Amino acid sequence: MNFKKVFSFSLLLLIAGASAVFASEEGGVAHSAATTFLWIAVILIAAKIASLVEKIGQPAVLGELVMGVILGNLFLLGLHIFEPIKNDSIIAFLSELGVVILLFQIGLESNIEKMKKVGVRAFLVACVGVVVPFALGVYLVGPLFLPGADFNSYLFIGATLTATSVGITARVFQDLKKLQTKEAQIVLGAAVIDDVLGLIILAVVSAMVTAGGVGIGVISWITAKSVLFLVSSIVVGQLVAPRLGKLFAKINTGSGMKFTLAISFGLFFAFLAQKIGLAPIVGAFAAGLVLDPVHFKYFKDAKVVRDIRGAVEGADERTKKNVEEAIEPHSHRHVEDLVEPVGLFLIPIFFVMTGMTVKLDVLFDVPILLVALGITVVAFVGKIVSGLVAGKVNKYIVGFGMIPRGEVGLIFAMMGKSLGVISDEIFSAIVIMVILSTLLTPPILAWLIKRDDKKIA
Amino acid sequence: MNFKKVFSFSLLLLIAGASAVFASEEGGVAHSAATTFLWIAVILIAAKIASLVEKIGQPAVLGELVMGVILGNLFLLGLHIFEPIKNDSIIAFLSELGVVILLFQIGLESNIEKMKKVGVRAFLVACVGVVVPFALGVYLVGPLFLPGADFNSYLFIGATLTATSVGITARVFQDLKKLQTKEAQIVLGAAVIDDVLGLIILAVVSAMVTAGGVGIGVISWITAKSVLFLVSSIVVGQLVAPRLGKLFAKINTGSGMKFTLAISFGLFFAFLAQKIGLAPIVGAFAAGLVLDPVHFKYFKDAKVVRDIRGAVEGADERTKKNVEEAIEPHSHRHVEDLVEPVGLFLIPIFFVMTGMTVKLDVLFDVPILLVALGITVVAFVGKIVSGLVAGKVNKYIVGFGMIPRGEVGLIFAMMGKSLGVISDEIFSAIVIMVILSTLLTPPILAWLIKRDDKKIA
Repeated sequence: MNFKKVFSFSLLLLIAGASAVFASEEGGVAHSAATTFLWIAVILIAAKIASLVEKIGQPAVLGELVMGVILGNLFLLGLHIFEPIKNDSIIAFLSELGVVILLFQIGLESNIEKMKKVGVRAFLVACVGVVVPFALGVYLVGPLFLPGADFNSYLFIGATLTATSVGITARVFQDLKKLQTKEAQIVLGAAVIDDVLGLIILAVVSAMVTAGGVGIGVISWITAKSVLFLVSSIVVGQLVAPRLGKLFAKINTGSGMKFTLAISFGLFFAFLAQKIGLAPIVGAFAAGLVLDPVHFKYFKDAKVVRDIRGAVEGADERTKKNVEEAIEPHSHRHVEDLVEPVGLFLIPIFFVMTGMTVKLDVLFDVPILLVALGITVVAFVGKIVSGLVAGKVNKYIVGFGMIPRGEVGLIFAMMGKSLGVISDEIFSAIVIMVILSTLLTPPILAWLIKRDDKKIA
Repeated sequence: MNFKKVFSFSLLLLIAGASAVFASEEGGVAHSAATTFLWIAVILIAAKIASLVEKIGQPAVLGELVMGVILGNLFLLGLHIFEPIKNDSIIAFLSELGVVILLFQIGLESNIEKMKKVGVRAFLVACVGVVVPFALGVYLVGPLFLPGADFNSYLFIGATLTATSVGITARVFQDLKKLQTKEAQIVLGAAVIDDVLGLIILAVVSAMVTAGGVGIGVISWITAKSVLFLVSSIVVGQLVAPRLGKLFAKINTGSGMKFTLAISFGLFFAFLAQKIGLAPIVGAFAAGLVLDPVHFKYFKDAKVVRDIRGAVEGADERTKKNVEEAIEPHSHRHVEDLVEPVGLFLIPIFFVMTGMTVKLDVLFDVPILLVALGITVVAFVGKIVSGLVAGKVNKYIVGFGMIPRGEVGLIFAMMGKSLGVISDEIFSAIVIMVILSTLLTPPILAWLIKRDDKKIA
């Protein structure tokens, strides 16, 4: 095992990086692109060290999140070296680009036919996973933990509890190579639908708070454009994808063309989704789903095929047939393989940064902690019950897969705070709920999936 | 040929993108990460359309630069759609990251042993390529075209003429697959040394302008730390690289570890170079050079090898031997292959943005144009003569390879402008010189290289 060596080398780089920044901060040198280069290197190395949790059977994403929490809270111990990362607007952008690339990748790896098969189930799971936590938030958590508070606060707590952060669950399924299972497809589909439903709820609740009420027209319009985006993406995709596939299969205008077209396609859809008011990740996922049936030939590999065919030219027919079968899966590659390194570069930034937004100091405030635990229980229960309508699959995997709130929950809470209906205390409690839903889901899900594997075996 | 289809599809995406932004600008929606996603998509698609100049034998980089010039000057025709790109700080960062990745890539593809072999020649070329243009600038161009101007202005014009922008030349060699030639190695080595010499000159000239003079101590210190960085990078690299190679060859802690370590290493060196006062690209190049001897096994490919070995198990010995030989080059891959997609994503942004900084309206001012042409001739001649000391290689390729000034020249001119010794007119003239040296070099170099190929054949 070279575990120790890798670890010490990585740690060395990390410390060297941190000291270098520290020295530079002391020297008073102005912030520049070069400093951001260093931050990227530090984040990537830290993420890779953290991903060694895979050695103890945990998904890499858990390590990355925890590493983020550690880096983001070292200031509590008087270490302020990593604080500038939190305010680096470029790192923030790269992090958002990272999660867009992740959802694009997940979309590419998802199969539109399989998604359609689980479509009804995903829709049911999404609805239950939105209605139950919302109702529990408004009519139970609110009155119980915050008696006498404004009803609008209850509404926002409810809204915060609805959104599923698909990024974390998707990474767990990806880390454990379970993206192709029915459970994963249902969760992914439901999470996307959740995002749409959550968006509608948020828009409606915001309108109710600001305008004191909202017309059926506004609700219908928000609903219509969101549904239209997803449906048209998938319909257009199914019409266009086969032609695109044919076209792309013939393109030989130099390496990189297909990769560029594909990734631009993903970014363009992310932009469109945002324009409509959906999260960019929903657009990126839809783009990946649309491009899914398209096979991209990867030029370098064509050479492997040629070389090996040449080598067995003189051999007997059976060997030739064996070799053809062996090289077949390597003769063409999905665009996934080209997107992967871009993902390796950008995705860890998102998860480390998500971890860094967590502020551990709220954990020391007992009353807030109690409210937080109450909200967390509701957050868990509300989503776990959604697994009950998932049909003939492992209901626990679906239910727990829906739990993470991640940055989506935080965005909702932040909006409530800016509207003045979420107090600092409730905000902290929501943050704790988001932490717990984010950090507990990966290990629980990994355990459930492995138990399921054993049962089948 | 699917040239037309690809072209129309790309164009469609581009127009859709531009219209989308246009619509959004009209709607008055605030700038967000999503808009930057769109800009990235637009730049990538535009770059890929432009790279079709490869079909007429031109290097892709020329197309990307020209596309940048077009997009950046559409405002002259009243089209302001692409103007926001110029002020997008995130695009600017991605562009800088792109050129860092490019030089890291070039460093990976360069061989440290080969570089040492051409070291003395590269040093000679660099010295001549700095001294001649500097002297010509200060004592010929200045007095001749700007009689009566401040001597400090002459000094700055001279300094502007010294720096070689290695990015463009390196891309041409890369596009034409000539990075391994002696000429390319000399130019790369000389360009890096040039950067160091140019930096020293710039620091000294700036000190002379601001302080009215400069001590030998300052000059020595600037020189020492620059030389120290490069020498220690290479020495340490040669000591550490073989160990690192051994270590990396054994790592099997999940895919992506080596890629992450390598790219973090490159970014870290880019940061270090900047700290010392060198361009980040010099650090990235040094990092690539250091990592060069390190072979990184690429996990997926190990599977190709296993599959094919299994397929020929029953075959005769000769076939087995043939197959072993055929798969050998595919059995391990350099980290280059993983860095490549990241480069495909980021590098075009740099070249399109470099093109976009070009302002064509200065071309309509005849007096400036004349000064510009004078400076340009000196810029060309000063570097072409440097090829004369390149030894037994194609002297023209080396000489012309040294010509591009690119963004380095612009940075020098910008500094002179901020110090008040470069007027708006001289600045415009320098911009034209940079345009011409940047746009004319790729086709000339491509032509010289092809002529050289024919001669050898």
